[in-house]
Amino acid sequence: MNEKMLNLGNNRSIIRELFEFSKTQKEKLGADKVYDFTIGNPSVPPHKKVNKTLVKLLNENDPCFIHGYTSAQGDLDVRTKIAKNLNKRFGTKYDASMLYMTCGAAASLCIAFRAITEEPTDEIFAIAPYFTEYKVFVESAGATFKVVPPEVKTFGINFSALEKMVNKNTKAIIVNSPNNPSGVVYSHEAIKILAEFLTKKEKEFGHPIFIICDEPYREIVYDGLEVPHIPSYYHNTIICYSYSKCLSLPGERIGYILVPESVTDSKNIYLACLGAGRAYGYVCAPSIFQKLIAECVNLTSDMCEYAKNRDLLYNGLTKIGYECVYPQGAFYLFMKSPEDDSYKFMEKAKKYNIVLVPSDNFGVKGYVRLAYCVSSDTIINSMPAWQELFNEYQSE
Amino acid sequence: MNEKMLNLGNNRSIIRELFEFSKTQKEKLGADKVYDFTIGNPSVPPHKKVNKTLVKLLNENDPCFIHGYTSAQGDLDVRTKIAKNLNKRFGTKYDASMLYMTCGAAASLCIAFRAITEEPTDEIFAIAPYFTEYKVFVESAGATFKVVPPEVKTFGINFSALEKMVNKNTKAIIVNSPNNPSGVVYSHEAIKILAEFLTKKEKEFGHPIFIICDEPYREIVYDGLEVPHIPSYYHNTIICYSYSKCLSLPGERIGYILVPESVTDSKNIYLACLGAGRAYGYVCAPSIFQKLIAECVNLTSDMCEYAKNRDLLYNGLTKIGYECVYPQGAFYLFMKSPEDDSYKFMEKAKKYNIVLVPSDNFGVKGYVRLAYCVSSDTIINSMPAWQELFNEYQSE
Repeated sequence: MNEKMLNLGNNRSIIRELFEFSKTQKEKLGADKVYDFTIGNPSVPPHKKVNKTLVKLLNENDPCFIHGYTSAQGDLDVRTKIAKNLNKRFGTKYDASMLYMTCGAAASLCIAFRAITEEPTDEIFAIAPYFTEYKVFVESAGATFKVVPPEVKTFGINFSALEKMVNKNTKAIIVNSPNNPSGVVYSHEAIKILAEFLTKKEKEFGHPIFIICDEPYREIVYDGLEVPHIPSYYHNTIICYSYSKCLSLPGERIGYILVPESVTDSKNIYLACLGAGRAYGYVCAPSIFQKLIAECVNLTSDMCEYAKNRDLLYNGLTKIGYECVYPQGAFYLFMKSPEDDSYKFMEKAKKYNIVLVPSDNFGVKGYVRLAYCVSSDTIINSMPAWQELFNEYQSE
Repeated sequence: MNEKMLNLGNNRSIIRELFEFSKTQKEKLGADKVYDFTIGNPSVPPHKKVNKTLVKLLNENDPCFIHGYTSAQGDLDVRTKIAKNLNKRFGTKYDASMLYMTCGAAASLCIAFRAITEEPTDEIFAIAPYFTEYKVFVESAGATFKVVPPEVKTFGINFSALEKMVNKNTKAIIVNSPNNPSGVVYSHEAIKILAEFLTKKEKEFGHPIFIICDEPYREIVYDGLEVPHIPSYYHNTIICYSYSKCLSLPGERIGYILVPESVTDSKNIYLACLGAGRAYGYVCAPSIFQKLIAECVNLTSDMCEYAKNRDLLYNGLTKIGYECVYPQGAFYLFMKSPEDDSYKFMEKAKKYNIVLVPSDNFGVKGYVRLAYCVSSDTIINSMPAWQELFNEYQSE
């Protein structure tokens, strides 16, 4: 048996452990008495047209077509419609040949990492705080995972650290904005600086350095904020996208990889992605969900619910006295732990049936992540518990 | 970029090339004038209850539940129902903890290969003729792929060759029965001999040698034939299953891995599978299709259509004078090429708009594979073309 795989299967993530704690407490005390902020499972239902379209697809089409294999890169119609949608939004000239339909963002990332790396010395960077599974995905592609330390307080990109780290083995940097877990959206200015820096480094080392955009939260932003479309800033950008969050379909596994024409040797990078997908056993993305996306490419779930939750949680916590990063997007709030050890804080919070994730899991110490894709009532009802938890620290 | 992945993406399989030829000819001559036997895409629609159940699931449930993440190993309810169904059919004592829901057979195999191998010297065997992608899956797991040469004419298991090949590095042997491409079902007797042989070799080398059953065609068998349930013969059997063929859902990517309790260190093998799934970016199997399987675990598509096609094709071809292996299961017929070079035969067949796959792609020389998951009319109408093709050889 493979020991590495056993460890991966065995080491249940802390999020899952907390989920079990929460489940047990809910059974004991009642669901409304436990304030679980651990899981990033969309709480807002899909747009009404989503299920209507699925029913229509099932009722009005040859079932052998609807449920049949598509080509490995995905149904031509859905890829064409996605390209058109992107072109309309970002003024780009994408076409179907640049898009590869995948089983969600995790698949997109695993495939992209495998496609662009060859040697164990090849490095892929994540910017802290970062989504924990990046490490697993990069290492399983046989490459080296490196973490750019956080820009504490703002949680933008720590350029002075990045500058020291990029070297001849650097193949890619993952950019996840809106960010899980910080809720931060990297500014146009930051992306511009990053693009200029990487262009310089590409020239210095004589090979491409890719930006891998992991952007399942692109559509979940607040206050009319615009998320920079990174390929418009930097030629060697590969997009890994998922419909999990914007259409509230996390369990259905549907997303894509976009390799724009501006990418160095783009046709071959695209083919290497197809090859990596084949090597990992991804035959095609779920067929009916491909056909759904073709019909719903303009839609998102109702984001107002998340905006309302963001305000309820941020305002409630800061009013009590907690120090929080103001979330610009996604459905996570990053909060400073009242004591340095965020695990100890997590344990104390459990006593008040507040369940949260220590930031250590995301490459940052002394913070916690709160997923506010929950009912607004959960947030409102949790406030007295947050107050008591806060008081415990004041009286120390 | 990764050159291996580029090659995998670039080397479109011959099946895909033939598909393109067929498409072009159909556009030129009309679909009814081209006899395409290349693709294993089920032609029989799913059982009527399948789409009805999907509509019901969509209409009667919380969409956040239906489309939400399940646990990585799959929804407990579906795993429980599958275990019960298997126990009823095979007199076993499986339970949910032994089942891991996957995105189809290709995912199941990739994950299992990665879970049970550790060193590049670890060997996984396939028995010729075999499904081409096995080589890709084994090698991408970092292990060595070896082929047991065919038992020509019967296409059972070549035990004398196998006996010479098994060595201290042998970790597993893939058993695909009903077989793609031969249509052969390995007999109870053959499985018994295989089990005894591997038990002996396990003792000799002091480590497990797994049978990996790839059995998406289990339910597609004819003449009331019974496919041996291999875990009942051999303790170290891992099942990789898919609902693609039996429920005609190939594009939806739903299947499972079963690690019976009889497997050495079964709990850890199961966990290593979970770990390998995580490492390849498989978050969960498509949620609504898991819930569908829970409701349709007893169903299959109507297999009579395939049985009818089998008879039409086998009887038609043998009457003309072709030498064919009598298909016992799956929807493939293995036919001897009238000349040694099956590629040359393939080219000659194209002149009559008959499209077929040379057996070289499956590790056997001098045969071709015909996929008869087509309309019966295609088979009936193809007969004059088969006759003309046959005549061409007689007049040489």
